[in-house]
Amino acid sequence: MTGANSPHHAAALVALDWGTTALRAYLLGADGAVLDSQASPAGIMKLPAGGFDQAFDETCGAWLKRDPALPVIAAGMVGSAQGWMEAPYIETPADASALVNGIVKVKAANGSTVHIVPGVLQAGTMPNVMRGEETQIFGALASDAALDNEPHGALIGLPGTHAKWAFVFKGRIERFYTFMTGETFGALRDHTILGRTMRATERPDSDAFMRGVDTAKDAGHAGMLATIFSTRTLGLTGQLAPEQQSDYLSGLLIGHELRGLNEVLAREQSNLAGKTLRLIGNDALCERYRVALARFGCNDAKTVGEATEHGLYRIAAQAGLVKAAVRASSKE
Amino acid sequence: MTGANSPHHAAALVALDWGTTALRAYLLGADGAVLDSQASPAGIMKLPAGGFDQAFDETCGAWLKRDPALPVIAAGMVGSAQGWMEAPYIETPADASALVNGIVKVKAANGSTVHIVPGVLQAGTMPNVMRGEETQIFGALASDAALDNEPHGALIGLPGTHAKWAFVFKGRIERFYTFMTGETFGALRDHTILGRTMRATERPDSDAFMRGVDTAKDAGHAGMLATIFSTRTLGLTGQLAPEQQSDYLSGLLIGHELRGLNEVLAREQSNLAGKTLRLIGNDALCERYRVALARFGCNDAKTVGEATEHGLYRIAAQAGLVKAAVRASSKE
Repeated sequence: MTGANSPHHAAALVALDWGTTALRAYLLGADGAVLDSQASPAGIMKLPAGGFDQAFDETCGAWLKRDPALPVIAAGMVGSAQGWMEAPYIETPADASALVNGIVKVKAANGSTVHIVPGVLQAGTMPNVMRGEETQIFGALASDAALDNEPHGALIGLPGTHAKWAFVFKGRIERFYTFMTGETFGALRDHTILGRTMRATERPDSDAFMRGVDTAKDAGHAGMLATIFSTRTLGLTGQLAPEQQSDYLSGLLIGHELRGLNEVLAREQSNLAGKTLRLIGNDALCERYRVALARFGCNDAKTVGEATEHGLYRIAAQAGLVKAAVRASSKE
Repeated sequence: MTGANSPHHAAALVALDWGTTALRAYLLGADGAVLDSQASPAGIMKLPAGGFDQAFDETCGAWLKRDPALPVIAAGMVGSAQGWMEAPYIETPADASALVNGIVKVKAANGSTVHIVPGVLQAGTMPNVMRGEETQIFGALASDAALDNEPHGALIGLPGTHAKWAFVFKGRIERFYTFMTGETFGALRDHTILGRTMRATERPDSDAFMRGVDTAKDAGHAGMLATIFSTRTLGLTGQLAPEQQSDYLSGLLIGHELRGLNEVLAREQSNLAGKTLRLIGNDALCERYRVALARFGCNDAKTVGEATEHGLYRIAAQAGLVKAAVRASSKE
């Protein structure tokens, strides 16, 4: 990695991805390139009262001592009611300008002004919220022009504890869904009878995973509360080894998530096979989703890299915190 | 309650409902009437090695000392691989004769022979199992002639930790489903983010419960993994008080169970509104299901009382353990 003081890679932005369980900090150049980065376990739920200043200084203090005028931007749960300062949600449909307008500023003890990006709320009787994912989504849009030009909009999935699926169209987040797939999997495995017959294993069993996906897709009409019991009964009847049951259950849940998403699409005369689709997240998890999506006929779900860094840079550029570089400004 | 030695109510059968977490014992007369009963926390998962004899003696010893020749029948997890003696599953379609043929006998230390009723297995790639519920189902059939005469079969629901829904036709359990509704509810409430914004309350909130049922029914097409997150977001947006969130989640899950069941019925050109339906279980839980079922157009879901006692008696009568009384023998 090129040093921050290299003349053609002068530091231009400190960008923070500050979530519930971790803080990642990036030092970005004027063109958005990552010059340096820091990872810290100082997620907002792990901080003592007043701990934001200390965590910020420990992570970014050296960069800012060298260049105190560097602008700072942050996204994620740091802007929640439990965060450093609340950045109230902006509502869907939401574009990058709306995010910029919703930025709140907090003055850090070290003299820097931290610009906190708001989350996005989809109001109504089935509300949905995101914090941090909106920034990743705009990062994906910034780095992939094809997404913005989709005539019927594109679909961006962010697998995880609370998986998000966002419908994006002409540079806006139109609406989105949250599937509690990761957290439900953990609760079922660790706190129901299903975990009792499982045996932990180092190596993922892709056959068992696919079997779970296919079961949800082809025999999931009674719903997840019914299909998950087969994790146990396939074991009782000798059809699924204890080492396979965890991956089978994971496949079942991801399969039900995609089945539900496909049902949403079906109501607008579409389906997963016909959508332009991107994934954002860690490689192993995105790969699980890619193979699961292929069972639903979707074979070109690309994973977008560095969506967080790109998103933070893009929003900072649009907010005028960094001089708009060619790559980003061409899109605004 | 009439004493067991009353001449016109001579004891004729000791009947045990022996599950994972509790043991209930009944002293029945020749006509099936309950003369006496005992409840014990000695479920099979709570017993030390060799504890079956002791628990049996503590619960039924006095009855058997008075009348050592009394036949003894037992149903439930006592017949599982972890039970007193394994009574291998019989397969669907299963009638009362098949259950009788599958009875295994264990000689107790006190000299009695305990007849253990087998569970029922639905084989295949989505297997299902029950132990104890089969006996309750035959109890319901014994006490309600209308069920046996349904031209298109009837549906019997047994709400609970692992809710069962059995399709019965001409005195047979044709097939059944298991919905892990109760256990999943507990895992989500106690071990995910959903529980964090809930406030416990003494009084059930029936409006919140119905709202959950309706949400699953009318807006549940994305599936349970998506709808459950609304428990949190309705709270965040001030639409659901902390005291209401538990009942809302309960309604959501029961609503998804019934939505799934309705989808199963839809594939055979039927629906919940058009089915003859009975419920077996504790009154409060059955009442929740009754009001939820009404939202699906099913307004005559009666709750069957004493299904366990009736079922144990009926199977014992058919096995020749008690002299077949008029009420039961008329059905065989």
